[in-house]
Amino acid sequence: MTDLRENVERFWRAAEARDWTAFAATLAEDVVYVLPQTGERISGRERYVRFNREYPGDWHLRVERVVAEPGRVVTWLRFTVGGRETDALSFFTADASGLIAAITDFWPEPYEPPAGREHLVERS
Amino acid sequence: MTDLRENVERFWRAAEARDWTAFAATLAEDVVYVLPQTGERISGRERYVRFNREYPGDWHLRVERVVAEPGRVVTWLRFTVGGRETDALSFFTADASGLIAAITDFWPEPYEPPAGREHLVERS
Repeated sequence: MTDLRENVERFWRAAEARDWTAFAATLAEDVVYVLPQTGERISGRERYVRFNREYPGDWHLRVERVVAEPGRVVTWLRFTVGGRETDALSFFTADASGLIAAITDFWPEPYEPPAGREHLVERS
Repeated sequence: MTDLRENVERFWRAAEARDWTAFAATLAEDVVYVLPQTGERISGRERYVRFNREYPGDWHLRVERVVAEPGRVVTWLRFTVGGRETDALSFFTADASGLIAAITDFWPEPYEPPAGREHLVERS
């Protein structure tokens, strides 16, 4: 029984290091990866490792925040690819042995604020 | 000393009920609200309550997931406005008395998946 928080931290270290053996070792065999923004879903460890291994570009990640409770973890990353930095938000759940069973990823993009709230906000 | 998780759950119930007195009671006076996607920032309870009170439309929210540890909470909402449902992800921290001190919100939008990974994914 592995602690999910430790497993998720190992998962991100292995991704950044392109250590796909260590990466795969954090995942349940029937892991499910879901991207609600595109409606995509990847089922199974082998496919999900390939998806990450094949991801193009010289990408790097830095963990900004981890919030964890037993069996549930959220990470907020700063992800850099092609000189551009973006946020990535990932919700993890564990199987009975503490391996990563499900990952739901969100990749929010910059947008222009709607008009009508300038009297309340500062812009950075 | 209030538990931050309880406070955040009260915060969302009060928002959905438009009970702005109960909503304000969950917030530190110097609460900071940050929207990284637009670079907007709102400082102070009074302004932040106004921002929510003035938000246009017949919006509704449903809490999809809460992940909490002492002093840090993340919520994943399904937010409906104008017949359209979207995800909203919020990272909370507490002040020493357990009130909400900082909120960072992300509003990810749908996008078309990049080409080249069709061999690994299913679309819903």
